[in-house]
This record gives sequence, C-alpha cells and structure tokens, in this order.
Amino acid sequence: MSTLKNVRFGLIGAGRIGKIHGENLSTRLPGVELAAIADVNLTAARDLSHKLHVPAAYSDYQTILSDGAIDAVAVCSSTDTHAQIIIEATAQGKHIFCEKPIDHNLEKIDAALEAVEKAGVKLQIGFNRRFDPNFRKVREMVAEGKIGKPHILRITSRDPAPPPIDYIRVSGGIFLDMTIHDFDMARYLVGSEVREIYVAGGVMVDPQIGEAGDIDTAVITLQFENGAIGVIDNSRQAVYGYDQRVEVFGSDGMVTVLNNTPDTHIYSAVDGVHSSKPLYFFLERYTESFIAEMKEFVKSIRDDSTPPVTGIDGRIPVVIGMAAWKSYQERRPVLISEFTQ
Amino acid sequence: MSTLKNVRFGLIGAGRIGKIHGENLSTRLPGVELAAIADVNLTAARDLSHKLHVPAAYSDYQTILSDGAIDAVAVCSSTDTHAQIIIEATAQGKHIFCEKPIDHNLEKIDAALEAVEKAGVKLQIGFNRRFDPNFRKVREMVAEGKIGKPHILRITSRDPAPPPIDYIRVSGGIFLDMTIHDFDMARYLVGSEVREIYVAGGVMVDPQIGEAGDIDTAVITLQFENGAIGVIDNSRQAVYGYDQRVEVFGSDGMVTVLNNTPDTHIYSAVDGVHSSKPLYFFLERYTESFIAEMKEFVKSIRDDSTPPVTGIDGRIPVVIGMAAWKSYQERRPVLISEFTQ
Amino acid sequence: MSTLKNVRFGLIGAGRIGKIHGENLSTRLPGVELAAIADVNLTAARDLSHKLHVPAAYSDYQTILSDGAIDAVAVCSSTDTHAQIIIEATAQGKHIFCEKPIDHNLEKIDAALEAVEKAGVKLQIGFNRRFDPNFRKVREMVAEGKIGKPHILRITSRDPAPPPIDYIRVSGGIFLDMTIHDFDMARYLVGSEVREIYVAGGVMVDPQIGEAGDIDTAVITLQFENGAIGVIDNSRQAVYGYDQRVEVFGSDGMVTVLNNTPDTHIYSAVDGVHSSKPLYFFLERYTESFIAEMKEFVKSIRDDSTPPVTGIDGRIPVVIGMAAWKSYQERRPVLISEFTQ
Amino acid sequence: MSTLKNVRFGLIGAGRIGKIHGENLSTRLPGVELAAIADVNLTAARDLSHKLHVPAAYSDYQTILSDGAIDAVAVCSSTDTHAQIIIEATAQGKHIFCEKPIDHNLEKIDAALEAVEKAGVKLQIGFNRRFDPNFRKVREMVAEGKIGKPHILRITSRDPAPPPIDYIRVSGGIFLDMTIHDFDMARYLVGSEVREIYVAGGVMVDPQIGEAGDIDTAVITLQFENGAIGVIDNSRQAVYGYDQRVEVFGSDGMVTVLNNTPDTHIYSAVDGVHSSKPLYFFLERYTESFIAEMKEFVKSIRDDSTPPVTGIDGRIPVVIGMAAWKSYQERRPVLISEFTQ
Repeated sequence: MSTLKNVRFGLIGAGRIGKIHGENLSTRLPGVELAAIADVNLTAARDLSHKLHVPAAYSDYQTILSDGAIDAVAVCSSTDTHAQIIIEATAQGKHIFCEKPIDHNLEKIDAALEAVEKAGVKLQIGFNRRFDPNFRKVREMVAEGKIGKPHILRITSRDPAPPPIDYIRVSGGIFLDMTIHDFDMARYLVGSEVREIYVAGGVMVDPQIGEAGDIDTAVITLQFENGAIGVIDNSRQAVYGYDQRVEVFGSDGMVTVLNNTPDTHIYSAVDGVHSSKPLYFFLERYTESFIAEMKEFVKSIRDDSTPPVTGIDGRIPVVIGMAAWKSYQERRPVLISEFTQ
Repeated sequence: MSTLKNVRFGLIGAGRIGKIHGENLSTRLPGVELAAIADVNLTAARDLSHKLHVPAAYSDYQTILSDGAIDAVAVCSSTDTHAQIIIEATAQGKHIFCEKPIDHNLEKIDAALEAVEKAGVKLQIGFNRRFDPNFRKVREMVAEGKIGKPHILRITSRDPAPPPIDYIRVSGGIFLDMTIHDFDMARYLVGSEVREIYVAGGVMVDPQIGEAGDIDTAVITLQFENGAIGVIDNSRQAVYGYDQRVEVFGSDGMVTVLNNTPDTHIYSAVDGVHSSKPLYFFLERYTESFIAEMKEFVKSIRDDSTPPVTGIDGRIPVVIGMAAWKSYQERRPVLISEFTQ
Repeated sequence: MSTLKNVRFGLIGAGRIGKIHGENLSTRLPGVELAAIADVNLTAARDLSHKLHVPAAYSDYQTILSDGAIDAVAVCSSTDTHAQIIIEATAQGKHIFCEKPIDHNLEKIDAALEAVEKAGVKLQIGFNRRFDPNFRKVREMVAEGKIGKPHILRITSRDPAPPPIDYIRVSGGIFLDMTIHDFDMARYLVGSEVREIYVAGGVMVDPQIGEAGDIDTAVITLQFENGAIGVIDNSRQAVYGYDQRVEVFGSDGMVTVLNNTPDTHIYSAVDGVHSSKPLYFFLERYTESFIAEMKEFVKSIRDDSTPPVTGIDGRIPVVIGMAAWKSYQERRPVLISEFTQ
Repeated sequence: MSTLKNVRFGLIGAGRIGKIHGENLSTRLPGVELAAIADVNLTAARDLSHKLHVPAAYSDYQTILSDGAIDAVAVCSSTDTHAQIIIEATAQGKHIFCEKPIDHNLEKIDAALEAVEKAGVKLQIGFNRRFDPNFRKVREMVAEGKIGKPHILRITSRDPAPPPIDYIRVSGGIFLDMTIHDFDMARYLVGSEVREIYVAGGVMVDPQIGEAGDIDTAVITLQFENGAIGVIDNSRQAVYGYDQRVEVFGSDGMVTVLNNTPDTHIYSAVDGVHSSKPLYFFLERYTESFIAEMKEFVKSIRDDSTPPVTGIDGRIPVVIGMAAWKSYQERRPVLISEFTQ
C-alpha cells in the first residue's frame, strides 16, 4: 500500500471505547481517514459521525464491510459480536483492529483466528496498555537485561469504581473483563508464558457483585515458564482513583512504575503534605496509549508487518482468565495446560 | 458570533512555533478551521499547508488579513514584525493571537495596544505556561487562599541547551527572550505587580554568549507590590533537561510543582536508584498548554469576553525585562516605576 | 518495681544481634544497666563486656540466671537454646526478652510459654519491626480506621544478600528465618489472624541454597480471618539493598511505606536522575526499632503490664512458617488449622 | 594524647543546646567522658549532671577551666560570653568546642581567635549542619566534580515558628542568629568565599519582630569569588515544619537534598494523597549531626589535626551577616570587602 494514500477506516461500535478510537482515527492519526461509522443504535452512529465530520453512518456494519474503499475496521461493538464481525471482515479483505477480549469462548476465538490466518489480513487486539510509556519502559528495560533474569513481577491494577451491576452480569467476570489486561501485561513484561495460576479472591466492595456471581477483589499468583513468579492484585474500587502500578524484580535490579497524576503539585500545610491522586480512570490514564496502538496498527498495514498484538496475544489471556476462575472455584493452583490439551 | 460556525484562522509565520499552533488549529481544536498560512518563506508556508491539508499558502500576510472569511490570526512571525501586523490586523477587524514578546520597544507596543483598543478586537499574548496544569494548579491554590498570604515565590527556569549564537544576537537578551515567561509567571502566580527588581548574573555556559552582549545565568530578585519577594533562577543550559519548577510559600503553607517526566519509572540497581530526566524542552513539556491557550482564545472570541492574557499582560513583562537589564548593568536594585513615568 | 531503681539486665549471647542489644542496653536506655554478659565463647563475652564497660563476663548463662541482682535477661543465643534458657530463667524469676524465633519446634515453644505463664514473668519476643516508625505508622492508620476495612496487604521483604550456606542449613528455612518477620508484620498490620496460606517459590538466587534444601524466592498469599488477602514477596538477594516496603489497601484508602535511605539526595545529570539506595541491611535500617522494642520491654517490667509482643505472638508466626513449608511442598493452599488441632 | 585515655570534657552552659551536647558527650561518644557541668544557674547545672550521672556541677565555669584533669570544654553559654570563655580556656590549655556565633563583635572574635592561635589549642565552631548526611552528600558530590563547575546554589532555610520576642531582641538579628548557618553552608557547599551580598527582606510573620528591629523573611543573593551565584530564602515561620533544602546546580548536573520526615508513609484517600511533614525542628532534624560534629572534634584532638570547622570558619559568617544587614538597610548590594579593610 502506498504511503501516500490515506488508510481508510470504518468504525464498528460507537459506544465508550468506539468514541475514543473514532476521535483518534479522525484527528490524531496522520495518513488515516475515518470514512464511516456503524452502530446498532443508528442515532449513536450519526451523533458521532456528525461530531467527527465523518461522511457516513449506518446501523449495520455489513455496509462498511462491503465498501471497497475501506481498508480496515476498528471493532468496538459488544464482545459477543467480535468473532462474527472478524470472520465477515476477513471475507471482505479488511484489516481488523479488535477490542479485547476477542470472545469468551475459545472455539469462537479459534474460528476467528483461523479466518484471519486464511485471509492473510492484519489483526491487532486492543491491549492498549502495552503502548503506555510507563509499561513500555519497563518492558524495554527487562528486554535489555537491565534487571537481569526476572524473578518477581508485581502488578497492582485497581479500578476507581465498579461498573454497573448490569454490566458485571455480562462482563464474563472480573478475570475476563478486568484482569485480562493484567494477564496480557504479565506476559508482555516478563517475556514468558504463564504455566500455573492460583487465585485468592472475594467480594469485599459490593455484595451485589457477589450476587451476580462475580468477585471484586483478587490476589493472583502466576508461575511462568521461565521460573519467574508474578502477583497481580485487583480491586474493583480504589477510592483514591485508578491504581496502575507495575514492578519487575530480577537478579540485577528492579524497575518500578508508579501512577500518573494530573499535575505534580505538592501542598505542604499544618495538617501534612498533600499531592494529587492518580488520573481518575482509563480514559484519562491511557489517552496516549490508545493513539499509539492505532498508530502501530496502521504502520503494520503500511509496512505489511506483523501487528504488535496478534490474535494469539488476544487468545492467551482468555485462557489464563478461564484458569483463574477454575482456581478460584476449586481453591487450588491450576495449570494453564489443563485448558490447552 | 454563532457557536455553530467554525472560527476561521489564518496563521502568520510557519517556523517552529508557527508549526505548533498550525497543527493545533488544524487538528486539535473543535470548531476551529485553519484556512490559510503565510510565511515570508513561501516554501515553508506551502510545506506546512500541504502537511496540514490547509487550502491556502502565501508569502505575504496581507492576503490573509484582507480575506473577509477569516476571523482571526495567529501571529508567529519574527518579533520585530508583531506590532506592525497587529496594527494592520486590527484595521481588518481580525482577532489576534500574538506570540510573546509583542515587541522589544515600548512605543511600538503601545501603538499596537492602542490599535487593538480602538478596533475592539480580541488580542491574546502567547504566555502559554499559564495554561500548563502544574502552574495553573499553583495559581488556583494561591487564589483560593490555600497558602494564606504569599511570602516567597521561587521559580527555577532553565533551558536544556542554549539557542544558536545567531539567535542570541537578535533575541533581545535573556530577559526578553527567556525570563519574560518567568516574569509573566511571577505576576500570574503571586497575583501582584512587581515593584522592584535586582539581578545577579553572569556568563557561565558559553563565552560566545557574553561576546554577543548577553548573559546565560541569572538569579533575579523581585519585590512585589503586596510585599511578597520572588526569586527566579535561570540558566541557558541544564544538562539534565528542561527544568521548570515553581514554589509559592505563604503564611498558611506552600505549594510546589516539580518537573514532568516522560514516564514514572524507577530503576534500582547496584549502583543506585535511577529515574527519568525531565521532558527535554518546551515542545514536549508544554504540548498541552499550547492547545489550551488557543482553546481559551477561541472561547473569548465566541463569548466576546476578555482573553485570559491581554495586551497589558504582554507589555508588563517587557518592562520588567528592561528593568532587569538596567539592574544587571548598574549593579543595583531598580524600581519598575523608573520605566513607567 | 520502683521507677527510681535501674532495671539490671544480663545479656545471653554476644553475637551479631547480642552486640546490638548489648550496646543499646548499656548506652541508649535510661534507667537500665547491663550488669553481665554470657557467651559460650568466653572471649566474645569478654570483648563485648570490655567494650561496653560491663563488669561481668561468663561462658555459662546460668551464672547470670542465678545472680539475684539481675532483673531481666536478653536471650540472643542460638535458636536451639532459646526454649531451655527461657525455662531456666523463669525458674529464677527473671523477665525475658527473647530473640525470634522462640524455637522451630512447637512442643518446645509450648513448654517455654507454659513456664513463663506459671512463673508470671514478662516475656517479649524480638519482632523489632513492629517498633519501626514506618510500620508503626501503618498500623496506627489501619487501627484508626483511616483505610476503612482492610482488603489487600502487600509486603515486600528482600534481603540484600543471602547468608552463608552454613547458616542456611541450620536456619530452619526461609520461612522460619526470614519470612517469620513478615508473618508477624502481616498479623500486626491487618489486626487479624491468618487462616490459609499458599506459597509459590523457587531457587533463583543461588543453587547452593536449593542443595541445602531451602528456597530463596517466594510469593506467599495469606487469607485472613477477617476476609482480607495478603501477599508477601521475598528474595534472599536484592542487589540494590534491603527492600522493606508495606502497603495496606482498604475500603476507604491505602497506606504505603517506602524504604529508608541514608540521605535524600537527588542527582540530575546527562544520563538520568539518580538517588540513594535503601539503607543496606537490618543493622542500619532497624537501628531505632531495636532501641524502641527494648524500651517498651523495660516499660512493661516497670508498669507490670503485658509486653507489646507476647509469647503467643512468638508462637503463631512459627506455625504459619510450618504451613508455608507444607504449602510449598504439597503445591496447594494450606489451612493454618491443619497445625493447630 | 593516647587513644586509650578518655577525653574528659567540661560542659559550660546547661540550656537547650548544652543539654544536647551534654547528653551526647555522656552517652553517645565512645572514649569520651563528661566530667563536669557549669551554668550560671546552678540548679540547671545540677539537674543536668544528675540526669547524666556527671560527678560535678558548678555555677562558675572557671572551676572547670582550672581543673587539670579536664581536656576540653564545650561552650554552650550565651553568645556574649563566648569570646571571654575562649580566651580564659586557652590560658588553661583547654581545647574548645564553641557554639555559633563566636560573638557579634569582630574585635572580640579576633581577640579570641588570636588567643587560640597563641595557645595552640583546638577550636571548633558548632556549625553542625556540615555533619548532616544530606548536606555532607551534596558537599562530597560538588567536591568530586559530579556537577562540574557550580553555577547556582539554592538554600531554603525556614524555621517552623519564630522564637520568643525576648530572644529576638538579643539574637543579633535574623542574619546572625538564623541565616548564619546558611552562610556557613553556602561557603561549605560551593567551596568558595562570598564576594557580594544583596538582601530583600521584610516583616511578614509577626509585626512584633519588626518592632524589635528585626525582620522575619528574607531572600538573599550571594555572589561568590568563583563566579557562582547563590540564593538563600529564610522565613521564621513555615507552618508545615522545619524546611531545610539545598540545591547546587552546575555545568555538569545538579544535586538536590529534600527534607527529612519522621516516616515514609503515603496515605491515598478520596481527598488526595497525603504524607508526613518534615521533622519538626532542629532537635529532631539534626540529632545525628550534633553527635557527628563532636566525634570529629574529639578526633581532631586525638589526632592533633585541624578541626573541620575552624575559628575562621566561625568568623566569616559573622562578617557576611553584617554585610547582610548593611545591604538590607541601604537597599543595595554590599561587598564583603567593605568589612575587611
């Protein structure tokens, strides 16, 4: 593909995450054009297209897929539609950026990945945190050997507030909805696959979450193929804001990243020293990473190279999430291989 | 002006700062349209207009001023042209965003401000740092009385590397080129006017700067009308990067802001604990403030309200800069009133 | 006991930890007198007594126990002698400060605690970290309800370098030698007992540690009676120094304590920003806590009050340590109650 | 002097600072013996000697000076008595540790220094902050060339609360009472003498301080012989506690030291992130430096070497303080040489 021609995108899904990608595709990415938006809620599609000066808005995504002038789609619809849209998009030769998770069902995931493979199109999964400057720095330092051999990984990942209970019910549970990002981060940072998982968790934030069959607090131990051990701690509610810290400790040192804040102010007064809370939630915290992941997806299309987060990278965290549930329910460490036979 | 209609801008000057404003006007500001670019170097104007998909590029700014479809201009040409362009722009009823300083000559500044006054157009001066989240937070806390009555202001403002000697020669000297931002910041943060100034300075970074008649290092004491005392320390070269810190100490507390960094990583190793340097220079450090100042300028046009940084706000730091030179040369504290009789 | 009369101590054991307590007892504690020192190595006892101007030095501790003018003993001999010395000391009515662990054998511990109970003397166990200003602050804030209900506890506890292999062999293993402090800290900070433990661990630092039957790296999950979940991560070798951090997260907030450093310097240079490593090891890091714990022990003698770390507080971490080993060996979560039937 | 024999001290003055040195001499310094205490208030001398188990207490210091078994004196009496006591002590061959300032009068200082010179005894002045780990680290890094050639020095030195007005009246003014420490620190850190001083100051904390002829807030510019420029900012009242920070910026980097805190806790809650205030005042902040300075004084006696802070080091800050007053009163920069002709 000529580097002179714009890459033309269609956006499928105009909800919260769709709006982010829509805005980035239409104003933040040089050489990219957002040509059409589809949403089952046509009003949502139209409102967003109006706001972003996008010429076309549809209620059915097929119109986008069948538009020969469109090169790629960003799939931001509900999770249960991802696999089907991927399969149909491959049939039209579209490159696909798909939000996480691909699906909650491994068979559907595998069918989608197979279709991508056959069609030879690009598929990138929206694990945006890999593109965050903090986590990228950690990965770089680990990869450069700055900390030696990794021994212990610590991920703290806590949301500022739980989603609505209605969302919880269809979310696939904390491990597939929230921790899935941390499972991806764990693989990315350590550079090794998870071999075994153990979960201690509970309902501490809101009993309704428990009634919906989910938990809201978890401490998860990961054992990696390379011998390293990881621990993730999750909470659906950190009252001080979005807590996103990571630390990798190894034979030659340690690298830690702290939270980002809206400003660096320090206020010293009679009653103590005070500073800013972390940026509130993912929209504020990961603004730049959403742009960066899409930039790299476009680059992989232009360069005809492998996208930085592949379909397999989208599949593995789902498997780990399933193993997490099994560990929690059976109160024992679970081998990932129990799911891959 | 209807809020439905885009505000149409012409950009005058396609150099370093012109590129920043051009990019922001064309992609970052909703309801704004960059309609034309002028630069004495036509190639520069054309290159930028091509890159930003701007329809018109000229070598003379008059074509922009006489275009009735253009509402406002962003003046990013060389300092010696600012006053003249302002005067001509007012004659065409354009609103004006003008980079700092307005001019190095008070009479020319006064003539420009008088023209703006008579024409009743908006004029905003490019003291972008007021729109930085850190400094804005400090101002808010001071204004809210969180630190009580301000007693001591400290500004550290150091560039990562000096500009080329050719630039130094026409810069108006360190106080009008570099410290002028700090003089504005001082007034803004303390909320009072400077009454007296004393400068201790020298050539420590590069003897060529001295040969060009300038200095590269200064410690500047400010005494404010409200009794507070301020100190600014400047260097043309901080080898660790752009150092932009501020502290206001008062009867009830203190607020400090530190540097911003590209990431929050901390690397602990045998030879110590290491972290990131400050963001390298103003392009990286003040990205958001350049967008925010223009957003507020557009808002003042739409709302027909006073811009947040007025012509007078542009004039006063020039006077303080002149007093700074006098203090340095005469080795004594100088009253600002010596320049305002 | 009159507050006017000095409390007279005998020190049993003049090794590394004995020297610390000896020095503190002889110079840092008002109203305290170090009257005699015993060590199986008489030269060690004599050297220390000479250095500290202590009048008596013996090779057998019985001489101290039978000295009617001595009120209390500090037991700093090897672990396998603790229980026996405690029992003999109670027979002479001495108050006892005993280093951790009491013993590796629960029956011996129980015999010692029973003797203490019967004699009605004071027994305090040397979990000095409770007296560290950082950890004490965390405990206070948790106890005051500042973080609400505790949900997640994180303890990072890493030594700068492993002890000699000969020591490893007789240490009782990492959980009874090193993690035992963290087990105590966990109970102390959360204010609840551990119900279940799961260990993921390995030999990553030195294969000789593995050959000695021990491990050197561990991530330990604790589930508390009150529902909170804790995680301890241990390493025998953090190349950047002694890493001793704690965090408690709860329904209303979080409290974290960082490492202490020898100074607060920050060095900014071309190659980054650099600061001091943590204080090297426990002698530097916990200097003040060793004094504070002894001060409180003396206070409990004078006031005839319960010491702040009782015999039961000494026993419980040993049980948790045993459960830790079982979990590691059997690769499953282990209930503490498996050891207390 | 044999290293085997204790150095026997007499303490002159049992007030606030006398108590600190008394306690350190009697318990914190190996090879040192506090043999006698004198205070014009005999009760004070007796109370302290009782508390510290010191055998002798007098109301007249001459008894100490004439005691042939005493090697050295620590002069902690009121400032106006220092010079006279120094002279009398030299007559008895005593080594002298003297609190700052030596005197407010240069002739009296010179007479004292001449007597010391003639007698060949050791004289060390109590600029304890040189022995603080933070400031010592800065000095070391500057001396090692880590920051290259020093360009800018910044000292923030603010007390938590002003002393009683009665004390202010006899203090010699803020520059001789409080800033004198910072003048010493400036010379020590930069490694060059002050050439010129300019003061901007005022009464902002308490009008009574102004009525007593003093000021309570100052920003002081120092120009050094080596070309560096320094700035000290002082306040008699920082409501958040004792603020003692230093920064040296140079051609190759910068070194900064921050305040020390009682603990490292960070509390994150709904209303922000909170941490500890600086240690309250000099007793808490400089505990270790008082011990370290005396240790080095004793070492200089034992080694017959030059003490680390000499009589000249005691004289120069007094001269700078006088120049500071002149600058403030005459509202102009003042050359130190105006006082040394």
